Amino acid sequence: MSDYSIGVDLGGTNLRIAAVDNNGKLLEKLTLGTEVKRGRDFVISEMVSAIQSLRAKYNGVGNLMGMGIGVPGFIDMDTGTVMDSPNLPDWTRFPVRELIEQRLGTTVILENDANAAAMGEKWLGAGRDYEHMIMYTLGTGVGGGIVMNGRLWHGMNGMAGELGHFTIYPDGHPCGCGNNGCLEQYASATAVVRMAREAIARGEASELERSAKDNVEFSARVIYTLAIQGDVAAQKIFEKVGKALAIGIGAMVNSLNLPIYVIGGGVSSAWDAFAPAMFAEMKWRSSIYRLTAPDHPDREKKHTIVTRALLGSDAGLYGAARLPMIESLTQTETFRTVRQ
Amino acid sequence: MSDYSIGVDLGGTNLRIAAVDNNGKLLEKLTLGTEVKRGRDFVISEMVSAIQSLRAKYNGVGNLMGMGIGVPGFIDMDTGTVMDSPNLPDWTRFPVRELIEQRLGTTVILENDANAAAMGEKWLGAGRDYEHMIMYTLGTGVGGGIVMNGRLWHGMNGMAGELGHFTIYPDGHPCGCGNNGCLEQYASATAVVRMAREAIARGEASELERSAKDNVEFSARVIYTLAIQGDVAAQKIFEKVGKALAIGIGAMVNSLNLPIYVIGGGVSSAWDAFAPAMFAEMKWRSSIYRLTAPDHPDREKKHTIVTRALLGSDAGLYGAARLPMIESLTQTETFRTVRQ
Repeated sequence: MSDYSIGVDLGGTNLRIAAVDNNGKLLEKLTLGTEVKRGRDFVISEMVSAIQSLRAKYNGVGNLMGMGIGVPGFIDMDTGTVMDSPNLPDWTRFPVRELIEQRLGTTVILENDANAAAMGEKWLGAGRDYEHMIMYTLGTGVGGGIVMNGRLWHGMNGMAGELGHFTIYPDGHPCGCGNNGCLEQYASATAVVRMAREAIARGEASELERSAKDNVEFSARVIYTLAIQGDVAAQKIFEKVGKALAIGIGAMVNSLNLPIYVIGGGVSSAWDAFAPAMFAEMKWRSSIYRLTAPDHPDREKKHTIVTRALLGSDAGLYGAARLPMIESLTQTETFRTVRQ
Repeated sequence: MSDYSIGVDLGGTNLRIAAVDNNGKLLEKLTLGTEVKRGRDFVISEMVSAIQSLRAKYNGVGNLMGMGIGVPGFIDMDTGTVMDSPNLPDWTRFPVRELIEQRLGTTVILENDANAAAMGEKWLGAGRDYEHMIMYTLGTGVGGGIVMNGRLWHGMNGMAGELGHFTIYPDGHPCGCGNNGCLEQYASATAVVRMAREAIARGEASELERSAKDNVEFSARVIYTLAIQGDVAAQKIFEKVGKALAIGIGAMVNSLNLPIYVIGGGVSSAWDAFAPAMFAEMKWRSSIYRLTAPDHPDREKKHTIVTRALLGSDAGLYGAARLPMIESLTQTETFRTVRQ
């Protein structure tokens, strides 16, 4: 058997653990309810015992290359500490990596969940043919991950890739990060629901209003269903999603001129509803995109691809498993100052 | 003597050529009037004969490492062609590099002028202690250059670093690139003059109005002089410059989390007038900047530096001379697609 590694995706609702071989073949996947409410010690115990059972099962069958763990929130890569995590409040400033390593008796790689998803799509998904890639994860919030030269770009403090906090509308809706008008306020599932409620409040959305009354859980999915059924108010909301994405992605195209931009996360299921507005707006917002779009008549040009993610909710799990396989050197190490 | 190279900075008004040794010491600088109006053949002849005279003079004294030429406009790095240059209209789609190489009998490196300036500041200026750096050049337009791992980041089509065309205000002033509200429309010398004329038209700026009538050339410098003399209308214009820069730089901090952002070009002389608004706005626009600003109480953190360029108008000349010294491998070469 090939060598393998173990990936962990710690979400707000699920704890998932998988053994994946170095060809990307899934050996086994465990999905546990995390019961985050029972506290970090309980969650870590569940995680450690699941990892140990997978390790025992595949021990001797193949060589364990290491373990990667994707966690929502800001990660300090040097110390393996979760600096801030809205979905895991009691994990803040907690040295997760050290504790897990002590329990397991081996090193693990801790990574932000959106970065892990980007690595998964780069390895086995939409970005598999590219060495440079940007991924947007449109979920409760909007996460980002930047892959350059085949590796995650962490930046000086390990905080790079916060693409959900690009200013899209400078006087726009307040964001949890302290800014106004962040991409996250226009392209997350939370934003879709908020924009629907705003349209209802303005009296512009009678179908949405009926739907909001009928549904205990008035979700982005419900609004998407109305949009594909032809409700104009619902369609307008996803057009806003597409336009906001175009402004954010357009800025990245203009700055880095990478070959591919991948959109994943739950809201990416509404691709049909937001993508047409997004592509139209991108040609306006980015002259580099306009010159390099796949429908540009210059066939010899290398094109800029904006596309859907392929791995669905498994992207982060595969990406976490991939982390120990690529060299452990992180980009942050090259940030030391040098005098020439 | 040390090895040396020859750098060329081709501007709209000046053609400057320098021999620089590999310690960054200027051996000789020639400043010629380009007379762009006399056409590209004339300009190239002037350039080639100046290069030849420098080469003859230093031949035998040191080893010539190569030549770099900074040109305003989009450069196709593969073919050495100027794809589009507003300041050099008859150079469009013209294979400059090939022609110069034929005349000189040796290879030259062609580079966008803002990228050359970034390389100059990275080598000998504000970015000299860093391997990763972003530079904004605030001139007639706004140019950008991204240095990662000590090299210019060119992107897939050699178009990376168009940081003047970040959307700052989605419904803002129309830009020559086809977008609305680009950074260039709020932070270039052209934008400063336009914003002053807008303030005059609104009847909000009596001092500016007097100054515009008295001055044949109503320039960003004149408006800056009024601002430092205390004219509130002029001060407000530079506050707009600072706020727009903060939105653009804040997005780059949130995406790449690099250690240093350098601001050069003619408008950077007005630093005192726009920097306070810029720094205040950056803390609002970028939570990563807020957490890593030099005045953040956490002294152990690696700080994000936003600072003035140091080399003035020589940045591009030094940068062009530097190009042959660093490995000739361009980032574009790593953009080929790979199947794993």
